[in-house]
Amino acid sequence: MAIFLALVHHPVLNKRGEVVATALTNVDVHDISRSARSYGIDRLYVVTPVTLQQRMVAEIVGHWTVGEGARLNPLRAEAMCRVTAASSLEAACSAIAEQCGQPPLVVVTSAQMPDADATWQGLRKQLRQDDRPVLIVFGTGWGLAPDVLAAADLRLAAIVRDPGFGPEDDGYNHLSVRSATAIALDRLLGSH
Amino acid sequence: MAIFLALVHHPVLNKRGEVVATALTNVDVHDISRSARSYGIDRLYVVTPVTLQQRMVAEIVGHWTVGEGARLNPLRAEAMCRVTAASSLEAACSAIAEQCGQPPLVVVTSAQMPDADATWQGLRKQLRQDDRPVLIVFGTGWGLAPDVLAAADLRLAAIVRDPGFGPEDDGYNHLSVRSATAIALDRLLGSH
Repeated sequence: MAIFLALVHHPVLNKRGEVVATALTNVDVHDISRSARSYGIDRLYVVTPVTLQQRMVAEIVGHWTVGEGARLNPLRAEAMCRVTAASSLEAACSAIAEQCGQPPLVVVTSAQMPDADATWQGLRKQLRQDDRPVLIVFGTGWGLAPDVLAAADLRLAAIVRDPGFGPEDDGYNHLSVRSATAIALDRLLGSH
Repeated sequence: MAIFLALVHHPVLNKRGEVVATALTNVDVHDISRSARSYGIDRLYVVTPVTLQQRMVAEIVGHWTVGEGARLNPLRAEAMCRVTAASSLEAACSAIAEQCGQPPLVVVTSAQMPDADATWQGLRKQLRQDDRPVLIVFGTGWGLAPDVLAAADLRLAAIVRDPGFGPEDDGYNHLSVRSATAIALDRLLGSH
């Protein structure tokens, strides 16, 4: 089973709930590619419609895979060589369909997911049984736009702490997208 | 049960295996404090013997808790107000002992832990049963120095992917400390 990640910069929300395109964040590409490589993910698509930002992705990847960075840190090269820019989520799906012979099951994530229709345990099982490629989608900014959530095949439950633990459970849930991606991969593919 | 985190900048290893002090990394403080707050952790100690770096921790925390950042992003203030610099792991333990009335159980983590004597499931259960405060320790750079691992009360197994999943399992294990901390908190305190 081939598993892919998408880190989406558009369409996502800003803190006022408006649909925007966010800027590429260097440390996202580093951290998420390292997590992806550690958990055996096929490819990370950095999704942005902005041509200049797509070129920045290529420059960062180039520096660490064929440039000076590759010599300094070969382990980083192994992670970075699985990163590609994509102009849209649809473009990423098309690339996956071309590689795998069928379009991926699109699974979206959000820190607020009132309409969740997939559990982590359920998807973990499914990943071991199905042959269809899977694309797991993460939003930058204040999360994926509602249209993206609605259009996906599956909507994963928000990552939360065990409510049975400790006195304080006030719903604070503001992980960085780097942390959320790492936790998601561990929930789906980790040896616990 | 009170749970604390330590992010250690000395003594840790560099890539040549030498014991060094690493530099403070701003995004570590942001990401790990957000994860800590999301999972109900009491406090994050940023451990560095370098006085100037301790002052930098205080400046970052100040900016986001009483400075301009607090106005821009009150949620970040809630995470950052739980961050303190400590000059050593011993100093962090003393502060916890003073707060809780007893010294913490010190639990260390590493991406390479041949002498592990604690499992994630085991510690997860223990956190729900014991009253003793727990300090979970993460190393920057290339990981905690061997002396720190040996001196701890418990050594957690390395975070790895499920070996039963997929064809590729070559032992690549190079998560950022931000990602590793997020995964650790989710394994111990997450609602899976």
